[in-house]
Amino acid sequence: MVEKRQPIQIDEAINKVMQHPLSPKEESVPLLESVGRSLAVNLYATHSVPPFNRSPYDGFAIKSEDTVHASRDLPVFLKVVGEIGAGFVFNRTVRNGEAVRIMTGAKIPDGCDAVVMLEIVREHGSEQIELVRSIKANDNISFKGEDTKEGALISKAGTSIHPGIIAQLATFGYSEVPVFRKPRIGVLATGSELLDVHQKLEPGKIRNSNAYMVAAQVMRAGAVPIVYGKLPDDLEACLAMITDQMDDVDVMITTGGASVGDYDLVPEFINRLHGKTLFNKVAMRPGSVTTAANLNGKMLFGLSGNPGACYVGFELFVKPLIRKALGTEQIHHAKSKGVLGADFLKPNPFTRIIRGRLEEENGQHVLFPSGLDKSGSVISLAEAEVFIILPAGTRGFERGMEVDFLLLEDQKGSEETWKTFSKL
Amino acid sequence: MVEKRQPIQIDEAINKVMQHPLSPKEESVPLLESVGRSLAVNLYATHSVPPFNRSPYDGFAIKSEDTVHASRDLPVFLKVVGEIGAGFVFNRTVRNGEAVRIMTGAKIPDGCDAVVMLEIVREHGSEQIELVRSIKANDNISFKGEDTKEGALISKAGTSIHPGIIAQLATFGYSEVPVFRKPRIGVLATGSELLDVHQKLEPGKIRNSNAYMVAAQVMRAGAVPIVYGKLPDDLEACLAMITDQMDDVDVMITTGGASVGDYDLVPEFINRLHGKTLFNKVAMRPGSVTTAANLNGKMLFGLSGNPGACYVGFELFVKPLIRKALGTEQIHHAKSKGVLGADFLKPNPFTRIIRGRLEEENGQHVLFPSGLDKSGSVISLAEAEVFIILPAGTRGFERGMEVDFLLLEDQKGSEETWKTFSKL
Repeated sequence: MVEKRQPIQIDEAINKVMQHPLSPKEESVPLLESVGRSLAVNLYATHSVPPFNRSPYDGFAIKSEDTVHASRDLPVFLKVVGEIGAGFVFNRTVRNGEAVRIMTGAKIPDGCDAVVMLEIVREHGSEQIELVRSIKANDNISFKGEDTKEGALISKAGTSIHPGIIAQLATFGYSEVPVFRKPRIGVLATGSELLDVHQKLEPGKIRNSNAYMVAAQVMRAGAVPIVYGKLPDDLEACLAMITDQMDDVDVMITTGGASVGDYDLVPEFINRLHGKTLFNKVAMRPGSVTTAANLNGKMLFGLSGNPGACYVGFELFVKPLIRKALGTEQIHHAKSKGVLGADFLKPNPFTRIIRGRLEEENGQHVLFPSGLDKSGSVISLAEAEVFIILPAGTRGFERGMEVDFLLLEDQKGSEETWKTFSKL
Repeated sequence: MVEKRQPIQIDEAINKVMQHPLSPKEESVPLLESVGRSLAVNLYATHSVPPFNRSPYDGFAIKSEDTVHASRDLPVFLKVVGEIGAGFVFNRTVRNGEAVRIMTGAKIPDGCDAVVMLEIVREHGSEQIELVRSIKANDNISFKGEDTKEGALISKAGTSIHPGIIAQLATFGYSEVPVFRKPRIGVLATGSELLDVHQKLEPGKIRNSNAYMVAAQVMRAGAVPIVYGKLPDDLEACLAMITDQMDDVDVMITTGGASVGDYDLVPEFINRLHGKTLFNKVAMRPGSVTTAANLNGKMLFGLSGNPGACYVGFELFVKPLIRKALGTEQIHHAKSKGVLGADFLKPNPFTRIIRGRLEEENGQHVLFPSGLDKSGSVISLAEAEVFIILPAGTRGFERGMEVDFLLLEDQKGSEETWKTFSKL
């Protein structure tokens, strides 16, 4: 009954998962609903920005040649022949000796090649201005296309849509935005010890926190969780749920029933559904009993029932699959280096992934492991801002030692695949 | 007609705004809808975690005293009197000479004080086990409360709800979560040059990008944007819109009509609505023509019509007001230090806030100013990941120089109020 499992390295496990990518699909959403979504097309400038030569200030549009000899002793007087606010166009070509009052953002009238700022002009009533210095051609003009030329690539497919990209989309007329569809991720917690969140505590039982935690991780990763709540450790009931719902989701996640024992459901699911196990043990702590399998083209993840192990398993193995379906290259967590802010003396033959907190001290990253880091600890999850990576080995880690870490809340991510963090 | 304005320092402007905070209000939402929201109450452990002594492994629960003399030469035999899976409780006290098969997560039966892992036990059928070493009391038991004691404070009001906090909320039975209500922020773009996003481009006109950009910034800050689209530079039309809608929002933002000129609407709004101007010029570039006013207890922000200036104005002055209403102490952007990755040679008498990109090189932050950094540049907004702060002065800045920067996408923020970044 007790099955012998062969652990594989973290990066190898990730690579096996990524050989079964979800195909990105497109959909269209109204502009403001696209905030935080993943752009599904390359965005090109549909016109130059600015789309016409315009005034960056309030002032007077003039012909610079009229001012060549202007000085304090020999001021030049120009006749104000009109006024243009932003959004309006002057209706004729400006002639020598003329000026047009112009507002910020307005189109430079034909015939003019410079703008004089209000501050350096002396106004005589509303019909005449006096200039006491010469103005160079092209002064104070924002030229058509100086920001962007028509046709330029301005944002790439797979980019997460933030306020700056919303500004671009609006500028180029996208009232509807093509985005990648959010994958649908089914989440089922198994375990006869589980109560629903609204239920009163009973002896020997705990509330189902994993399904909701994973659902929140799914949301953070950019996908839609479909939460099936919890089921007792009953193979037939779980199998029925999974087979019923598999068509409705892109990926199925179970938590619990993954360790080696009599009540282990996950190996049986895979067997009964004729799935192909990619791995069922990973050389890491927590989360060594993580299973991934392919069931008729769809991925099933059997994450541990321990909250900490479950959390790590999702971030390392499921998140990159979601990110890939959102068209991004940066499917992994952003990785950086810092120093330990506290000792972590317990060595481990497997790589440890420690949840922790990141602080900055004098421009240096300092990392603090959270709480006990028992994999069952739901409390230390509150501080899960980073994963601190402590390589496998026979020595512990002391305060001040340099370590790698992964950022969990960062939206930028990393293209880099994982290096091998542990040796068997 | 041309009004002389007196610039104030950035930090002084922020302080003036923060003297008119919105009062945080609570509401209740279903568990999964609380993801990303701000927790409105201190969260205490409603029970110990674990709530009972439990087994961290599959194995046998025993009385350690039975094994004191166990050895390879003198093995101890225990009678297996039952089996308990997670979620079940053993129905009587275990006696000397007995063992109970126990699964991960199950409650330790009364009378037992240790668990022996499956791997070190020799089973004789299902009724007897053999032990060849002594087991210490308390071995392999996860004790009640070892993670958290009942009554402990586990997350503070004002915390942004991430997956780890969702796990805590589920554990302690919060199927509904008290969160701070999202403030409602009205956004109106003014300018006769503005077209709606779906409209075709016309000579002298541009599409309204600011209203949607600001709306996306409002969403990123954690509030709800109410977008009124755009209105031409028509005082009465704008006034009517603002007075009509002011009751429906907590804060009103206008963009455009803020600079010094004939068509400036913002000073007139404030006048006509008997508001009190807090400031109408800030010693910074871009965004010097930013206005904040109090209208009968509600804040009105008149941001610049230039996309870059508008973007900066929102982040510096409106965002902290929103964050405060969400109950957080870290109302400002997180600040850090890095080095410039490129020259920025143009000095300025006002502090420059340059949008840019952050890279990591050997654990050091390297900052790259985006595009032209003209305040009208909608393109450089796509790269707005950080604000690089270049203090006012007479010198430019060279590649490799150390500079401060603010993180725009970071959810953590900073409690610190701004230092004075520029001198008049």
